[in-house]
Amino acid sequence: MSKVGIGIGLLGMGVVGGGTASALSQKRDHLADLVGCPVELRGVLVRDVGKRRAIRLAEGMITTCADDILLSPDVDVVVELMGGQEPAFEYVMRAISLGKHVVTANKEVMARSGPEILDAARKAGVRVLFEAAVAGGTPIIAPVMRDLAANEVISIHGIINGTTNYILTRMEQDGADFGDTLEEAQRLGYAEADPTNDIEGIDAAYKLAILATLGFRSRIREEDVYREGITRLTARDFQYARELGYTVKLLGIATADVDGVQVRVHPAFVSADTMIAKVDGVLNAVEIQTDLAGKLLFHGAGAGSMPTSSAVIADIVEIARSLRGGGAPPPMPRISGDVRVKPMSELHTKYYVRLTAADHPGVLAQIANVFAQCSISIVSALQKWRDDDNKLAEIVFMLHPSSERAMQRAVRQLAALEVVDEVSNMVRVEEW
Amino acid sequence: MSKVGIGIGLLGMGVVGGGTASALSQKRDHLADLVGCPVELRGVLVRDVGKRRAIRLAEGMITTCADDILLSPDVDVVVELMGGQEPAFEYVMRAISLGKHVVTANKEVMARSGPEILDAARKAGVRVLFEAAVAGGTPIIAPVMRDLAANEVISIHGIINGTTNYILTRMEQDGADFGDTLEEAQRLGYAEADPTNDIEGIDAAYKLAILATLGFRSRIREEDVYREGITRLTARDFQYARELGYTVKLLGIATADVDGVQVRVHPAFVSADTMIAKVDGVLNAVEIQTDLAGKLLFHGAGAGSMPTSSAVIADIVEIARSLRGGGAPPPMPRISGDVRVKPMSELHTKYYVRLTAADHPGVLAQIANVFAQCSISIVSALQKWRDDDNKLAEIVFMLHPSSERAMQRAVRQLAALEVVDEVSNMVRVEEW
Repeated sequence: MSKVGIGIGLLGMGVVGGGTASALSQKRDHLADLVGCPVELRGVLVRDVGKRRAIRLAEGMITTCADDILLSPDVDVVVELMGGQEPAFEYVMRAISLGKHVVTANKEVMARSGPEILDAARKAGVRVLFEAAVAGGTPIIAPVMRDLAANEVISIHGIINGTTNYILTRMEQDGADFGDTLEEAQRLGYAEADPTNDIEGIDAAYKLAILATLGFRSRIREEDVYREGITRLTARDFQYARELGYTVKLLGIATADVDGVQVRVHPAFVSADTMIAKVDGVLNAVEIQTDLAGKLLFHGAGAGSMPTSSAVIADIVEIARSLRGGGAPPPMPRISGDVRVKPMSELHTKYYVRLTAADHPGVLAQIANVFAQCSISIVSALQKWRDDDNKLAEIVFMLHPSSERAMQRAVRQLAALEVVDEVSNMVRVEEW
Repeated sequence: MSKVGIGIGLLGMGVVGGGTASALSQKRDHLADLVGCPVELRGVLVRDVGKRRAIRLAEGMITTCADDILLSPDVDVVVELMGGQEPAFEYVMRAISLGKHVVTANKEVMARSGPEILDAARKAGVRVLFEAAVAGGTPIIAPVMRDLAANEVISIHGIINGTTNYILTRMEQDGADFGDTLEEAQRLGYAEADPTNDIEGIDAAYKLAILATLGFRSRIREEDVYREGITRLTARDFQYARELGYTVKLLGIATADVDGVQVRVHPAFVSADTMIAKVDGVLNAVEIQTDLAGKLLFHGAGAGSMPTSSAVIADIVEIARSLRGGGAPPPMPRISGDVRVKPMSELHTKYYVRLTAADHPGVLAQIANVFAQCSISIVSALQKWRDDDNKLAEIVFMLHPSSERAMQRAVRQLAALEVVDEVSNMVRVEEW
């Protein structure tokens, strides 16, 4: 440290960067008291120096050249808030190699390259903290890494994408269909113009890969995560879910047993009685089950400028406090496990199936026969909606636990039945 | 450190001590990997050396003399799990003065003497961590102190006593009265033979004082906490609550505004729709509202050997990791604020009132008149149960927000009315 105090270099001045810079400035006295010395912003990487910004930055602090920050002897902690894989990943690795500590909110980089980053940090004797990368302002990375340090993680169930949870909440409350609700969410700014990352579960898969990697201390890649989006859900799925005592949520699920781990993001029926069913709108929640602590739930804001900067500054303070002490920082965790990632076909759970079939005697028998041949037991079969013109009926099945392999076979065979017009949806029913 | 590794001295070998010793032993390799060196139990203070224990401890490790642990050069971290004010407080202060770091699960000591302890630790350059003192295995102290470090806390609402939450959950689910449910809880081991500390809200007041002190960074004493237990609640209160869309929980509530802070433990109506209403049985939950992060909820086990030892070991690991680095440990927070604690009479909230009155025309008018004179508006007045023999009726009132002062005056005036047989209960209705 060439100056008194801890120097912060900010890469990126978007919504979260602005919130972080502004909170660092507004809370400077409080942060100085917490750390024991000032925590000062000393450089900000932007794309456009001339852009008007809500926060006023001192002359000479803004640059369009990353090296001005990465190479600065006045910068102790590099805070990466650019998002996206490159050049963020390159800057993070370069910062580490230059002996800088790093705070990042970048889920993509941490999901794809987290273990390399942690490994490089461990070797360089610096820290990389990334609380804001999952669930925004809701503490979840630190709880897993620190508060649950003594625990083996058994399972993680999370609502970790606010956009889809907003859409699903509206669909449930308004009885609206997916397309209309997505449009509304886009109008309101809750969904992006290209919503693919959210509605196809890609964003949730990044976050689940990060949580599972930390929880199981084994590298879980984003491509290990089985992924299904929310686009096939309809107003009627919600109606039937409610009638059956459930609601529908996009869950990120990671489970471990003696055979390996399973990691998946898909819509799921969850019992309306559970706490996770109560997570509404853009909020996030993560439930973690461990050997010692049992079941824990963390619930709060999953995004937004202020909540995310709360997480970013917590990480900055954590690093600054250990820097102040002058010793070697605590080592970053080793992601050294090598668990088997089980294929989706080995999943064992309950299912909901909605299909349209010919409305005449004997049809249910044919369908039930397919389930029987696949060794799947039926909990209930309810004929719901009826199309008299086309002599079609919609039937909803709730099924006892079976393997995904059997279920996929059953769905294929059902679709091939002459009496079945369409297998409209198949949703997993999760209890844990 | 005279030996390689971090040495742990355990004061107390009850349920949590046993769980901690056993987890330290079973997870030794994992903990050594996390910390970077072994974490070893090096001494255990017990009351009776001869007692048979589930966990086998090495010869010479057990002592009945605290100084054997406090003065040992092999002990780096003293873990106090004795409970109660003395001699636990004395040992903690002595450990600090001897340069030992301290982990404690002692809510009584931290509630009564937390600020002195943190101050002494700050001056001695050691750390005192106490995650297990509130909400057992659910991380809440570290989230407030670390993850929310940048935040101003606006309010805390917690279910922080498992025994009373178990009793209230059973009363709600079984329609049972308080006395019977307490007896059942005692039979099952969820309530102690002398349940006063739990059912009168004393335990919850300790925990709330700790959370409020950290959250508001000002000393909030246990005696600052207004306290009402759960003994006046009846099956009918639960029945009416349900009819009105609420459930009843014993809440610890701390709120801050420009006039000061309010800290209170009492039964409260909470909307059946909320997440906190879903916290069942012995579980705990704390909801914290802050300026940056918004509303966060932490939910999980509030007691028990394994969950509590999970929190204790997390603190041990945290200290051990910073010890390994060799520098000065991060300073303990300064509890330097000096907020005004507002008297209960300044509370402003909604109320539920249940009373028994003469069952004849004009009675409701007299009662409504009392509320009107106290400037309290009535949301609803429902005549529920009726005692034809004595010509009495039970009436339930839901009231618009008013001051506690006005409400207490109204209750006194109602009780003095000739037509009122009894004001049976008055419960605050909390929305936040």
